[in-house]
Amino acid sequence: MNKEISSLQNPLIKQLIKLQNKSRERKKTGLFVVEGLREINLAIVGGYSIKQIFYVSKIIELKELVKTITNPSIDFIEITQEIYQKLAYRNSTEGVIAMVKTKNHSIENLIINNINPLILVAESPEKPGNIGAILRTADAANVDAVLIANSTTDLYNPNIIRSSVGCIFTNQIATGSSTEIISYLKKKNIAIYCAALKNNALVYHTQDFKKSTAIVVGTEATGLSNEWLKNATQSIIIPMQGKIDSMNVSVAAGILIFEANRQRNQ
Amino acid sequence: MNKEISSLQNPLIKQLIKLQNKSRERKKTGLFVVEGLREINLAIVGGYSIKQIFYVSKIIELKELVKTITNPSIDFIEITQEIYQKLAYRNSTEGVIAMVKTKNHSIENLIINNINPLILVAESPEKPGNIGAILRTADAANVDAVLIANSTTDLYNPNIIRSSVGCIFTNQIATGSSTEIISYLKKKNIAIYCAALKNNALVYHTQDFKKSTAIVVGTEATGLSNEWLKNATQSIIIPMQGKIDSMNVSVAAGILIFEANRQRNQ
Repeated sequence: MNKEISSLQNPLIKQLIKLQNKSRERKKTGLFVVEGLREINLAIVGGYSIKQIFYVSKIIELKELVKTITNPSIDFIEITQEIYQKLAYRNSTEGVIAMVKTKNHSIENLIINNINPLILVAESPEKPGNIGAILRTADAANVDAVLIANSTTDLYNPNIIRSSVGCIFTNQIATGSSTEIISYLKKKNIAIYCAALKNNALVYHTQDFKKSTAIVVGTEATGLSNEWLKNATQSIIIPMQGKIDSMNVSVAAGILIFEANRQRNQ
Repeated sequence: MNKEISSLQNPLIKQLIKLQNKSRERKKTGLFVVEGLREINLAIVGGYSIKQIFYVSKIIELKELVKTITNPSIDFIEITQEIYQKLAYRNSTEGVIAMVKTKNHSIENLIINNINPLILVAESPEKPGNIGAILRTADAANVDAVLIANSTTDLYNPNIIRSSVGCIFTNQIATGSSTEIISYLKKKNIAIYCAALKNNALVYHTQDFKKSTAIVVGTEATGLSNEWLKNATQSIIIPMQGKIDSMNVSVAAGILIFEANRQRNQ
């Protein structure tokens, strides 16, 4: 099926624009937008269901698209370059954008096959760029799951998708309240290592992360909530040796997760 | 001396706005802008020379300012809240902003007292947010110097100052061409560890970073230039175990620098 759309008033285009800009619309419809062929393919590999693919034939030909995206149930819709410019969130000229169904990220849906899993938990992460960087680190370290507690930002925010460079689709992600996630980790006997900002914690690399481990990071400003700290198996700290007690949260998560990997790979 | 400015046409205010927005103006005049009392104090501690401090008396009183900033040669100038709103780059209500003299970041000015220094080198870092995060990591790890090779972004870009949360003032920073920096490191017998993107490098944590060490990171897209790679004492890699070979450059720098610190603190 091949249609062509050249009007910004087309209901599908209007919906795409809404989905790009409004978290409420994404929640209401269970849909979001993915830009770029590579990202769309990663979404498909990650088990996401593609509703429609919109493409600019001057930039990318349908036969090229069909070569990589082979699912026969996907609807390809041609749009003009002018419309694409209005839709595209990224400063790119890929000419392809998809409407995709969101997933259910309930913690009950997690599948952990590793008998000694390594899990990364972020409590109330705020900046899309930090969440994207954390998802890239989690993919690179091949963690078993990323759990986002008390999420304040919609996971399908275009800035998270962009800054994750597709790692939003390659990670197993669950969201939930801190209470739910703590209860899940305890039930599964996964040790809870809470990254602390104060010096009453043990230095991170003195701990054994080879057993079932959750590394938990909080916000840069206030750290983890008391709920996490009081349920920690152990609070850990990255020693700060400078003049300013300050580190980007995604850098801190990277240091802790790769220390766990270093121990596990030795 | 206490003046009051209420016009956007005032030459000093016009210059402040230019200095906030234009790298060329900063280079031409050797001046830049620092917002916030904490950052201004860090600049003073870091040996920066403050030309003038502009403040909104409704937000912060002169007597409070003079309590923390005791240098008698600094000129305090009162401005209206309306003007402050036009000047302030950050979304803050601190009410204080300073015109500060830039430093000479020539590599010849570096002072390295540590006999086995740990140095972080970034080649052609682009995004201000990444440079800020790298400076925060460098401060936290107390590295001896941060060297920026073939810089494409002005160090005094307001977004770098902001995202470094003042760590631009607490680190010893030098800039120069890759050729100059490589020559400096070789002359000082500092081992050059180049972070590589391809798997022909050795796993980072198998290396001994306790001796004089420079950790060198390149851009996310293309990694380090051949000039660095061919001058490396050893290329090193953070093993990528996920589906996407991708990590934020400031996260990668953090993992490598803190592995060096882990080894040095044991």
